[in-house]
Amino acid sequence: MRHTISVIVENKFGVLARVSGLFSSRSYNIDSLTVGETTDPSVSRMTIVVRGDDRVLDQVTKQLDKLVDVIEVTDLPAGSYVGRELVLLKVASESGTRTEILEIANIFRAITIDIGHKSMTLQITGAEEKVSAFIEMMKPFGILELARTGKVAMTRELNDKG
Amino acid sequence: MRHTISVIVENKFGVLARVSGLFSSRSYNIDSLTVGETTDPSVSRMTIVVRGDDRVLDQVTKQLDKLVDVIEVTDLPAGSYVGRELVLLKVASESGTRTEILEIANIFRAITIDIGHKSMTLQITGAEEKVSAFIEMMKPFGILELARTGKVAMTRELNDKG
Repeated sequence: MRHTISVIVENKFGVLARVSGLFSSRSYNIDSLTVGETTDPSVSRMTIVVRGDDRVLDQVTKQLDKLVDVIEVTDLPAGSYVGRELVLLKVASESGTRTEILEIANIFRAITIDIGHKSMTLQITGAEEKVSAFIEMMKPFGILELARTGKVAMTRELNDKG
Repeated sequence: MRHTISVIVENKFGVLARVSGLFSSRSYNIDSLTVGETTDPSVSRMTIVVRGDDRVLDQVTKQLDKLVDVIEVTDLPAGSYVGRELVLLKVASESGTRTEILEIANIFRAITIDIGHKSMTLQITGAEEKVSAFIEMMKPFGILELARTGKVAMTRELNDKG
């Protein structure tokens, strides 16, 4: 099963390597990972999407919790949080296909952030399914480059503890 | 100096740990890192923002290039690419402050993705300076949670090689 895990860590050398090493040592593949500072620059927040055996994941999160620089580990229950990602996508385009690409982009509320003679770079944000559907729609035009941030997630207020 | 590095890798166990380990072994701190699949699920793309000595970074990128699972390493020259990030931000809000928060959000084109009695969750996307300015404006209301994806980046067509 797929899990979305939020990990709050001290912003120190090597934390990322230790956290990701823990997953790979258990042959647990990471689908996506994002890490960025919080409002306190000494503290970072990671959001990790992993897939695999639930029992093994339970062991991994317990081990994560024991790492010195890990402050908090939360396995977000499906349905309790909002998840979003951002994708940049460079698609082949010329005068003949540009209008069609822009029409599809409008439907998905994607925006154009760069344009040239042979390509356009579009930005789309949303839940994974929406983003994936947009990527599918762009494939026939020819995707030259694709960069996904991976998911960030936050619990809904009504699901917050305390 | 700050650098934005794009790394194309085989999507295999342990690649993330090896790449991030290479930076930390040189005491090179990672400001942000994102990793996600490309259109080919066997290939992932990482965008890494690091800060430190240029000469050391040069050594690190050369070593990265030598790792078995690394396909391509590009140190993106400032000004040659578009960079974007996505941020989710849960801010304390009640009937007295909600309107004011929404007015500021509108100016930054941030959108509301969850609302409750005590808080709102906002989503903002953009270049780092815009995102940081918005976070500053939200601080007086009380930021309860913050999750940044970190930057993804793509070269502009006019700067593409070949």
